[in-house]
Amino acid sequence: MTDMATLEAELRISRLNLDYARCIDEDRLESWVDFFDGEEARYLIHPRENADAGLEGYWMYCRNKPMMRDRILALRKANIYNIHYDRHIVGGSQVVGVEDGVYDVRTSYCVIQTDVEGRSEVFSAGEYRDKVVLNGGGAKFREKIVVPDTFNIERPLAVPL
Amino acid sequence: MTDMATLEAELRISRLNLDYARCIDEDRLESWVDFFDGEEARYLIHPRENADAGLEGYWMYCRNKPMMRDRILALRKANIYNIHYDRHIVGGSQVVGVEDGVYDVRTSYCVIQTDVEGRSEVFSAGEYRDKVVLNGGGAKFREKIVVPDTFNIERPLAVPL
Amino acid sequence: MTDMATLEAELRISRLNLDYARCIDEDRLESWVDFFDGEEARYLIHPRENADAGLEGYWMYCRNKPMMRDRILALRKANIYNIHYDRHIVGGSQVVGVEDGVYDVRTSYCVIQTDVEGRSEVFSAGEYRDKVVLNGGGAKFREKIVVPDTFNIERPLAVPL
Repeated sequence: MTDMATLEAELRISRLNLDYARCIDEDRLESWVDFFDGEEARYLIHPRENADAGLEGYWMYCRNKPMMRDRILALRKANIYNIHYDRHIVGGSQVVGVEDGVYDVRTSYCVIQTDVEGRSEVFSAGEYRDKVVLNGGGAKFREKIVVPDTFNIERPLAVPL
Repeated sequence: MTDMATLEAELRISRLNLDYARCIDEDRLESWVDFFDGEEARYLIHPRENADAGLEGYWMYCRNKPMMRDRILALRKANIYNIHYDRHIVGGSQVVGVEDGVYDVRTSYCVIQTDVEGRSEVFSAGEYRDKVVLNGGGAKFREKIVVPDTFNIERPLAVPL
Repeated sequence: MTDMATLEAELRISRLNLDYARCIDEDRLESWVDFFDGEEARYLIHPRENADAGLEGYWMYCRNKPMMRDRILALRKANIYNIHYDRHIVGGSQVVGVEDGVYDVRTSYCVIQTDVEGRSEVFSAGEYRDKVVLNGGGAKFREKIVVPDTFNIERPLAVPL
């Protein structure tokens, strides 16, 4: 039976993922990097087909915070992509391991995207594989690997998942 | 770091939203008004496109409980609309403020509708922006503003979201 | 107001459903039966249309663990069906009753399926109606009845929901 300390950690990490998702859904992308811990934090999108086959081949590969900031700057200043709303539906987070105070966590997600005509459809479904630190300053991601089941998308993947 | 009292409040409010959603999904609409606190409670549906632009333009506007009861009575006795099943998938609730014991809360939702042929699709995705009171008598909505991302729907919006 | 003991039970049962769902989504189907308590545990899929009408007519009917094991064995060795990824998005679990230490629980779910081309869509939305036991050995299902709203599916229902 899961002990109370783990249940409480899972509550806090679930909340971290809800905050993270709402930040994206409200298009506050300049704050997105603040969910990560330290300049060396990583954010990757690794489609499940590739991940399962042991293949590299990432859709986004940010191995530190400057790369994340660059990604958002490009998005705001240079990239051309379809305007849309994102809506994350995020399941509860599950701790699957802990090492040196870093939690290894799995969380299922689904992103529903709404286009400029107001029509909504499933854009991406998959899993977050996170390394999370909890401390006095709050919960943050040391690493976030997004593993989408959906490896075929007709619209650009512009905004982080 | 979120304190335990807030985490507990969020658990209770998450549960309120689950109860609320299940009431609709089970078509117990006469009980729907019981989730609201006091005769002056409000229930609005305000599409995100309008809300973001600072425009009025609501899909439903019930500024008190009699208007809610009237809505359900109309639904049962007069309205013509497509028979369907609703299924809410509701994310965890996040307290974003509290004033005079009233919690300001955000919750992402998705409603999957199934038609009389048994086919399911995303009907509405968006956010609940709630004012919630917690007391000995339970958790209730002082105000519930539904903000759908999905502002273009091909079927009637008959049942509350 | 829900008491703390019930809230804690709901947290544990929510986690059981998340574990259960991830077991299926990761295709660890040989472990699927381990979520059930005792050889006499039952797993049924009963479409909502039939359930509401008081009709029998199940999509899967396993009235004990050997039938569950047989189901998975058939899936691995004999059945022909479309290869796909499953992704469950599971809402929070709600205890609606308790009798002799067995919790009666409701949980909304949605399964998004991704085909071999990498395209995702809603495959099934509905409700879990579970009988759950909590004890020192963990949380398990005495009975799990899946009630899909989606009663019309174009793909085979091969894998448990």
